[in-house]
Amino acid sequence: MGRARTVFFLSDRTGLTAETLGQSLLAQFDDLQYTPVSIPFIQTREAAEDVVRLIDQAATQDGLKPIVFCTLVDDAIVDLLEASAGVMVDLFGTFVGPLEQALEQRSLHRAGRSHSVANSRHYHARIEAMNFAMDNDDGTAQDYASADVILIGVSRSGKTPTCLYLALQFGLRAANYPLVEEDLQAKTLPEALRPHRRKLYGLTIDADRLVHIRQTRRPDSTYASPAQCRWELDAALRLMREEGIRHIDSTSRSIEEIAATILHETGVRRRFF
Amino acid sequence: MGRARTVFFLSDRTGLTAETLGQSLLAQFDDLQYTPVSIPFIQTREAAEDVVRLIDQAATQDGLKPIVFCTLVDDAIVDLLEASAGVMVDLFGTFVGPLEQALEQRSLHRAGRSHSVANSRHYHARIEAMNFAMDNDDGTAQDYASADVILIGVSRSGKTPTCLYLALQFGLRAANYPLVEEDLQAKTLPEALRPHRRKLYGLTIDADRLVHIRQTRRPDSTYASPAQCRWELDAALRLMREEGIRHIDSTSRSIEEIAATILHETGVRRRFF
Repeated sequence: MGRARTVFFLSDRTGLTAETLGQSLLAQFDDLQYTPVSIPFIQTREAAEDVVRLIDQAATQDGLKPIVFCTLVDDAIVDLLEASAGVMVDLFGTFVGPLEQALEQRSLHRAGRSHSVANSRHYHARIEAMNFAMDNDDGTAQDYASADVILIGVSRSGKTPTCLYLALQFGLRAANYPLVEEDLQAKTLPEALRPHRRKLYGLTIDADRLVHIRQTRRPDSTYASPAQCRWELDAALRLMREEGIRHIDSTSRSIEEIAATILHETGVRRRFF
Repeated sequence: MGRARTVFFLSDRTGLTAETLGQSLLAQFDDLQYTPVSIPFIQTREAAEDVVRLIDQAATQDGLKPIVFCTLVDDAIVDLLEASAGVMVDLFGTFVGPLEQALEQRSLHRAGRSHSVANSRHYHARIEAMNFAMDNDDGTAQDYASADVILIGVSRSGKTPTCLYLALQFGLRAANYPLVEEDLQAKTLPEALRPHRRKLYGLTIDADRLVHIRQTRRPDSTYASPAQCRWELDAALRLMREEGIRHIDSTSRSIEEIAATILHETGVRRRFF
């Protein structure tokens, strides 16, 4: 038997698009073992020729044709790669022609225009939103009036990463408020949150997972004990239900999925596309 | 004249892939005005039928055929959409057939397997890396020994968002150290960084941009004055050059590009793919 098949993700820019779509496609093949190789910033013929050598080498070593996902704009570079031993999956070129027809407009065929967020207005909105998330993390500052959304949940239920992702991907101002023991014993929404009820969204998490996460932070603490975790989660869920606050279980979902779900369910408008 | 053309991004999951590739493709068309509409989580025939109505409506209102980028796995749902008035760009279906041939394996044609980072090992690595970035932000804590990379630069040069992105996207432990006035006057690397020279990567930024960013944080301060910004940037750049530290200008680059460049130039291995 040869080695696992090599899969290349090639791009003239960051390679993110090739990786994202390529991985989604490969996820449709059960138990597929492969060795991923990402090569971004392929912008010259020389760079492309080096890549062809790598593909051909992998083909020989694996005894299997590499799959080559690419988002390359320059036709000359694509042509070079077509001559390799890999199976080309041209994520870009495949659709440019049909789009030119539909839009009745020639495309630029020019690299370096791929990332929509490179422009300065978006850049500022993202940075501002990320600053907001960091400044309004874990109930330290409370500029809830400026927030687009406020995530609530027990400590380590995934609020902070989700807030940062909402800021990065959608430019949203996402604050978060950790429901601590006193909040949960009071069995009502904390004072600070009440005026902003419509912005609230809850995160829950499986108790065993929470125990595990808390154990890595504070081993053998009450904070990380199964009894404490279960009590907090039950109380938080009850509070969310009683207050009619939408919530999602973060356990088996990626940060991307949680964020997209929040956007979808709340109808909050992203600040850029 | 009709309105701007509507462009739909449809998905049975988050819609991120459809948006990313769709936007990259549209960026190849100069001065194209369009109204983006993203509809994620299309998982039932009923949901698809609603979307068909939206597409047909947009076609009538715009007087232009909508472009429909989709990453839908379920053939029955794709078939429904094909009957709409939009121009379908089937980012998924187009490649599944050729991949089945190349891999000599039937695909699952099953939704919900698209996001590679949903599994628990990746989830942990990401969360841990994001915690690391937040704990090691702006020289507060200094676990540089555990860092994969340490970003240096003057205050507000883009270090924190880049660190968070490196954590989120690649699971990397990225610390950051702000070069403050004392560091820049000393004209040598700060003591704490010297043992980790090989992990250092510098960020620079255009002086006018920096002034603007600092003004929004602390208006009319010395900190935000053009003279101070220019002096700090010059001194930081000189230090990086003298110490042989690679660096990148963050001014006209997206966070994604900066992060991908750092990975590419340093050869740091991502913690997951």
